[in-house]
Amino acid sequence: MGDSEKAAIVLLSGGLDSATVLAIAREAGFALHALSFDYGQRHATELQFARKLAEAAGVRSHRVLKMDLRIFGASALTDERIAVPEEPAAAGIPITYVPARNTLFLSYALALAEVLGVLDIFIGVNSQDYSGYPDCRPEFIQRFQELAQVATVLGTEKGQKLSIHAPLQYLSKAQIIRRGLELGVDYAHTRSCYQLDTQGRSCGRCDSCRLRLAGFAELDLRDPAPYI
Amino acid sequence: MGDSEKAAIVLLSGGLDSATVLAIAREAGFALHALSFDYGQRHATELQFARKLAEAAGVRSHRVLKMDLRIFGASALTDERIAVPEEPAAAGIPITYVPARNTLFLSYALALAEVLGVLDIFIGVNSQDYSGYPDCRPEFIQRFQELAQVATVLGTEKGQKLSIHAPLQYLSKAQIIRRGLELGVDYAHTRSCYQLDTQGRSCGRCDSCRLRLAGFAELDLRDPAPYI
Repeated sequence: MGDSEKAAIVLLSGGLDSATVLAIAREAGFALHALSFDYGQRHATELQFARKLAEAAGVRSHRVLKMDLRIFGASALTDERIAVPEEPAAAGIPITYVPARNTLFLSYALALAEVLGVLDIFIGVNSQDYSGYPDCRPEFIQRFQELAQVATVLGTEKGQKLSIHAPLQYLSKAQIIRRGLELGVDYAHTRSCYQLDTQGRSCGRCDSCRLRLAGFAELDLRDPAPYI
Repeated sequence: MGDSEKAAIVLLSGGLDSATVLAIAREAGFALHALSFDYGQRHATELQFARKLAEAAGVRSHRVLKMDLRIFGASALTDERIAVPEEPAAAGIPITYVPARNTLFLSYALALAEVLGVLDIFIGVNSQDYSGYPDCRPEFIQRFQELAQVATVLGTEKGQKLSIHAPLQYLSKAQIIRRGLELGVDYAHTRSCYQLDTQGRSCGRCDSCRLRLAGFAELDLRDPAPYI
């Protein structure tokens, strides 16, 4: 990495949000290192979309890390025995919540940042849509950034400033889509469904599909991704 | 878990430090859930000792989580191509440093804490012996505790207080051994070597062996574990 080039790590799931974040980091002039996770989730097919998005964005590298979160077995996203709900959740934490998921994702991003000497990490959390998830809130991102500063050689020995960027934090789904379209994101190549079928088609009924479809509807647009 | 029983998660490597921490957590009256990591390290044999220690301590559960840190390939502990140094390190970060390792270990412990409803996590970091590792320092433990508070449902929705305990933080190796012996730890069943052989014998020459041997020597004791 040349001294004149600034690089960033972008957490990339293949979903609408992280695809938009990738475009935002690119627009900001960062050389991109994408990091995805294969964590035994139902929507592993989503990773194929992550690969295509990374390639289309011209990333410097794209790593897919295998994680076994099923030993914790407490979420509809990782436990095959729990059905994904197709009705909007009542108040409280949705069953699709994966314990400490973003803490883990950011920790791996931090390890990679240390290895590559990268100071900027981007994540597509969004406190409006997922207010039930503690690890999507601004306080969480702030505290992780404070942790990152003392957890690495970059921050301690070298005195460099690490930043966790969450550019979607206060945007609605419609605002995210509008921003992504301005930046040329092709949402036909993103998936958000919690129970994607093997042909990559979304269910249209889970919480995540409902939010996504409502976002496009608010903009009077049709979601270009296929539904069953 | 009964309301009257307090439980803790203990990060357990099979080494001298974490064996002592396990005994300290037990002495403090916690029901124990041990968590170990198989991260492609050279000393995977150490995990057999973790299993024996967990069993001897009468833990409620012991999970061994497989992690592939080799994709980051930046440490003598995970990269087969880098030799473990047998001379004491000069100033700065030792080559045996694994990027963000304790951040990752504590993040997994936090995920498990969330699933089990446990509020106390024990880790055997020690800022005296490993002053070169940023993620062994008191500031790091303090910031992780602050993160834990906002990262989980336990801390946010339920308003419970999460604690990261690092009872060895300010102890010398000799003080750790003395405390462990008081609590009945059998150090014959622990290993600390960075390049343990397949029969479970330590090299006696790596940084970790040197620190351990010096600790026993300071107490005029012989390390009961076998060396080549």
